Amino acid sequence: MIKLASRSINIFMQQSKVPFAHYKVPEAKEDSYVTGLKLANSLKGSELVPFIPINGRQVNFYYCGPTVYSNSHLGHARTYLGIDVIRRTLRDYFHYDLLSVMNITDIDDKIITGANAAKQDFLEFTKVWEKDFFDAMEALNIELPDVITRVSDYVPEIVTFIQKIISNGYAYESNGSVYFEVQKYIADGHTYPKMRPEVNAELLQEGEGESQVNKQSEKKSPYDFALWKASKPEEPKWQSPWGEGRPGWHIECSVMASAILGNPIDLHAGGIDLLFPHHDNSLAQAEACFNCEQWINYFIHLGHLNIADRKMSKSLKNFMTIEEVLKRYTPRQVRLNFAIHQYDAPQNYSEEQMEQAIAKDKSYQEFFQNTKIYLRQSQVTDAQKWTENDFQLSALFRSTKQIIHQALTNNFDFPTVVDATDKLINQVNIQIAAKNVRAPLISSVVNYVNFIFGLLGINYQTLFSNQIDIQPLMEQVCSIRDKVKVAARNNDFESITNAVSQKQLEYEKNISNHLVDAINQFQQEVLVASQNKNKQQIFQLCDKLRDQQLFNLGIKIEDKDKDQASVWKQYDVQELKLEREQQQVLLQQKEQQKKKEEQEKLEKAKLSPKEFFSQQADKYSEFDETGLPTKDKDGNELSKKQKKVVQELWEKQNKLYNSYLEQQKQQQ
Amino acid sequence: MIKLASRSINIFMQQSKVPFAHYKVPEAKEDSYVTGLKLANSLKGSELVPFIPINGRQVNFYYCGPTVYSNSHLGHARTYLGIDVIRRTLRDYFHYDLLSVMNITDIDDKIITGANAAKQDFLEFTKVWEKDFFDAMEALNIELPDVITRVSDYVPEIVTFIQKIISNGYAYESNGSVYFEVQKYIADGHTYPKMRPEVNAELLQEGEGESQVNKQSEKKSPYDFALWKASKPEEPKWQSPWGEGRPGWHIECSVMASAILGNPIDLHAGGIDLLFPHHDNSLAQAEACFNCEQWINYFIHLGHLNIADRKMSKSLKNFMTIEEVLKRYTPRQVRLNFAIHQYDAPQNYSEEQMEQAIAKDKSYQEFFQNTKIYLRQSQVTDAQKWTENDFQLSALFRSTKQIIHQALTNNFDFPTVVDATDKLINQVNIQIAAKNVRAPLISSVVNYVNFIFGLLGINYQTLFSNQIDIQPLMEQVCSIRDKVKVAARNNDFESITNAVSQKQLEYEKNISNHLVDAINQFQQEVLVASQNKNKQQIFQLCDKLRDQQLFNLGIKIEDKDKDQASVWKQYDVQELKLEREQQQVLLQQKEQQKKKEEQEKLEKAKLSPKEFFSQQADKYSEFDETGLPTKDKDGNELSKKQKKVVQELWEKQNKLYNSYLEQQKQQQ
Repeated sequence: MIKLASRSINIFMQQSKVPFAHYKVPEAKEDSYVTGLKLANSLKGSELVPFIPINGRQVNFYYCGPTVYSNSHLGHARTYLGIDVIRRTLRDYFHYDLLSVMNITDIDDKIITGANAAKQDFLEFTKVWEKDFFDAMEALNIELPDVITRVSDYVPEIVTFIQKIISNGYAYESNGSVYFEVQKYIADGHTYPKMRPEVNAELLQEGEGESQVNKQSEKKSPYDFALWKASKPEEPKWQSPWGEGRPGWHIECSVMASAILGNPIDLHAGGIDLLFPHHDNSLAQAEACFNCEQWINYFIHLGHLNIADRKMSKSLKNFMTIEEVLKRYTPRQVRLNFAIHQYDAPQNYSEEQMEQAIAKDKSYQEFFQNTKIYLRQSQVTDAQKWTENDFQLSALFRSTKQIIHQALTNNFDFPTVVDATDKLINQVNIQIAAKNVRAPLISSVVNYVNFIFGLLGINYQTLFSNQIDIQPLMEQVCSIRDKVKVAARNNDFESITNAVSQKQLEYEKNISNHLVDAINQFQQEVLVASQNKNKQQIFQLCDKLRDQQLFNLGIKIEDKDKDQASVWKQYDVQELKLEREQQQVLLQQKEQQKKKEEQEKLEKAKLSPKEFFSQQADKYSEFDETGLPTKDKDGNELSKKQKKVVQELWEKQNKLYNSYLEQQKQQQ
Repeated sequence: MIKLASRSINIFMQQSKVPFAHYKVPEAKEDSYVTGLKLANSLKGSELVPFIPINGRQVNFYYCGPTVYSNSHLGHARTYLGIDVIRRTLRDYFHYDLLSVMNITDIDDKIITGANAAKQDFLEFTKVWEKDFFDAMEALNIELPDVITRVSDYVPEIVTFIQKIISNGYAYESNGSVYFEVQKYIADGHTYPKMRPEVNAELLQEGEGESQVNKQSEKKSPYDFALWKASKPEEPKWQSPWGEGRPGWHIECSVMASAILGNPIDLHAGGIDLLFPHHDNSLAQAEACFNCEQWINYFIHLGHLNIADRKMSKSLKNFMTIEEVLKRYTPRQVRLNFAIHQYDAPQNYSEEQMEQAIAKDKSYQEFFQNTKIYLRQSQVTDAQKWTENDFQLSALFRSTKQIIHQALTNNFDFPTVVDATDKLINQVNIQIAAKNVRAPLISSVVNYVNFIFGLLGINYQTLFSNQIDIQPLMEQVCSIRDKVKVAARNNDFESITNAVSQKQLEYEKNISNHLVDAINQFQQEVLVASQNKNKQQIFQLCDKLRDQQLFNLGIKIEDKDKDQASVWKQYDVQELKLEREQQQVLLQQKEQQKKKEEQEKLEKAKLSPKEFFSQQADKYSEFDETGLPTKDKDGNELSKKQKKVVQELWEKQNKLYNSYLEQQKQQQ
């Protein structure tokens, strides 16, 4: 065995002199669709490679789906949100004609263990967790792939595929199992493992997973991996030319990707944790079956996710299911959190990061709300001649589009996209606050920003418009309320009575009861208060309408300066509630921090100046009778300057200590 | 004068030996954004020319807006809908970075006449019609340009521009007006008119409009056209170096396009009726000012619109305002009518054409409704393995995308786009009716088709979703109603009572009163009918819920075969009403046709066989005593076969006549 191992290491050494020399960059032909997009291709050691599809605009895309045996967690969220954004960008920004396939691994060691523990048939068991996965995807607004392939549907195709590999001479049957013959494959001039040339013999042996540990004697070499596993008792099994058994893990992706997308395939993606051995073995199997040199042209990998600097695991108690995360944050906040990190870089999830995402989300909501109001208040018949402001904003708009285009072609660099968008938004905010820019230009910017957020699977515009049109009603309400407040300031109760007892409000017939009720109640209560000439109550009613009645219906009124009309904004009710909760959590955290600081201050005040300095042996070594330090930790006399500093500290502590004593005396 | 005219004709002859030789196709550079788009360029005699913007993805686009002095009409609809679709396609399909400018002509002969007649200030007058125009644009869902330029805002810039043309030697002042010197311009090697090289001397003189007819004596040549017009009494006027006056018509576009977009400009568009002299003069002015050879790289023209084969005009009583059109048809139907015609071809508007658009609109609505139901009823946990059907539909989907891409690059060939989309939709309809295709694939097709309709400014998906979610409620209602009907068929009144007196329905708090009321009413009435064991009434109540109560709220229930669940679809209430009206109009037309045919039949029945044949002198010349024809119109005896035919006709007419006589007798 040892002899065999060292021989194979030599083979690995031999082939890997020039890493990634095997990779052939697809060449642009006459009818190629060239957009300038470059991808960090794992087949070329993550080097940026121009993306050229095989057939015109068509892109065949396969990505590894989940093994369905447990709850979907934050790691899934990162991987599939990343792929979702890539899919939307390829399709909606670059206009590739995308056909995407995702598998569901429903045959696997962990599934067998889980199903046996749950005393369920394995397909019954996987259906439960598959549904859990897709529910989580839907909650996060992740689009379905065009094609879903379940391993359990493709066993006959897998058997045929393995037979082809055997007949090509790269696999052998042994004791009812079938293994891939790594050395033969390399000896014939193929490269393995393609994406991790620096891999060592130890790693290669690790690749096979726990259930294969005892199978070494069946294999010609420890590096060989299973394509087909002879069945053990209590395992699902299928008939095959090699007896009853089940597919190995790696073979499924080679077979299902080929079944739908053929050979060669443009693009393959998956989590970085799958790069070796899963993806390298998938490549070897397909290339051994088709006797080709490059089954996949571009292989991209989603970065690893840590939770608060540690690997996520159930034992570390930092395992977070998507369901749990979505109780605390909106899908948009979660999406933003991942979008502001480069998809193929490692990411460290933390609460602080989520707070950043929440803040960003809030600023984007306000951008869309404020521009909406600006456009609502603008008339096309207003002055339209461009001033210097418009020219400047237009130039910034164009340079932003240019930056974003470059960033997207640069391996989907969304952090740069988000950053450029923020700068544009910031400038628009300044311009509309000054009311110094033409509405049609703002409208174009808003549409573009909305389009860019669409690539992130986020749509703020429908968020605010996907409801019955309350605009006519709300315009009237704001106007009445403004009148009431102005008149109350002037003690003009007649005007108030007039304002709230005018003709019935006009609104859409199918508007919500609750809104109409709230407004009617406001009017009636103000009427009574006005008849009682109760100015204070009128102001309170105006506040109640804003802070409680309308807020609970998802509508915020923003009061402006005395002489300016108030404005209203509509939000999703559930989200407003969640926002309140999030704010309360933050408030509690701040209060706890404050309490902690007060406690520390109290502990410090309990010390006399003498005790205070004597605790600082790391700084001082000798003290006078009042406790004042005279020598530093190395035994040197304190300098004049140092003496002045410790004198001041002594006096400060003395003051603190005396006030503590005073307090104690009073409490007795 | 005659001598002068013939000299200038020679100059025109000289320069136009090779038509369009002046045009230089923009060349692709290293950083050019090349999409394959080709435009029918009027600068090259409508030849298809590859579209290459000057700076990367940036496209500077100017198009001629309306002269605001009267109602917006169907001609405006065609032009601005066409430009709207082009803008959306350039931006959303080809991803050019578009900056678009449209002018408003608010200084013009017709405006002066109109304002004087209305006794209004000209700006007061134009504001009214400008608002009318923009209201019509909004009603048709036509997007605003990024920049709106009004001529009245740009008079100082116009004066400066004219001064530059004078100093370049191509214009001269005469009697307080300024004219463009065509002959000098041509003599210096410029081409004029660029887009209509076949233009003749007569046409050239026509170009100046009525107000200039008497100004020939001021001009060096009859072909010269006014840049600045000395003011007459009761005209708006501005100070200038040449005294008080106002800009000529053509100069405004040269100046305002340059003020925002500079020189050169990528793309210019306008109605074909403006090609000469307006656009040719605009080109000459700008090129004379900048002393350049190609101010505009691509000039495209929207085709002419006839109404029922005649030019639209108020005198022909076929003048149709957009407001009038939108009382009869939805904006979508109007948009579709124009979308299915090539933008730069002439189009003939007719009622039959609109009926075709209505039919198309209906089929698209049903496509989106039926796929929505298919997707609503599908689960991601359903069988997902692709069958031959899925592979075939996927292949059709890809070839459709390819056809549409080719068509769009081919001068925005939307008739082909719509045709290819129809074929794809048709295939999807077949597949979902057979329930034999995977839902994720259907979902992708639906999203793509929605995107393509988006280029036409039409969004069927938001049409059905831009409302409060009634899905949970409607699922319950359909289910209850289905149960009631099945139970009624079985005379199982106990089940009916149970079905309608179950727990309260669950639904969104902010759902419309009217819907909830209708459903409660249905339940109460069914309960009573069930207690009375009145089966017939129960069926009537089920029909009433479907045909009246829910229909009036924009919800249609479709009953299926006995053993299948019914489905529901939601529509826009206003549109459903309009659809009913449109159907009633069609029904009335059919009834009138039927009445007319009955009247003709009655008139015929009043004739005895003798009278019947004697009226046919164009066929027969002699008859026997019963009125039966014996000789044909040329005096030849009828053949045996002919005799048989007339004998049969005689008997038929005799029968008809006798039944008429019988009827008459009974009525007496």
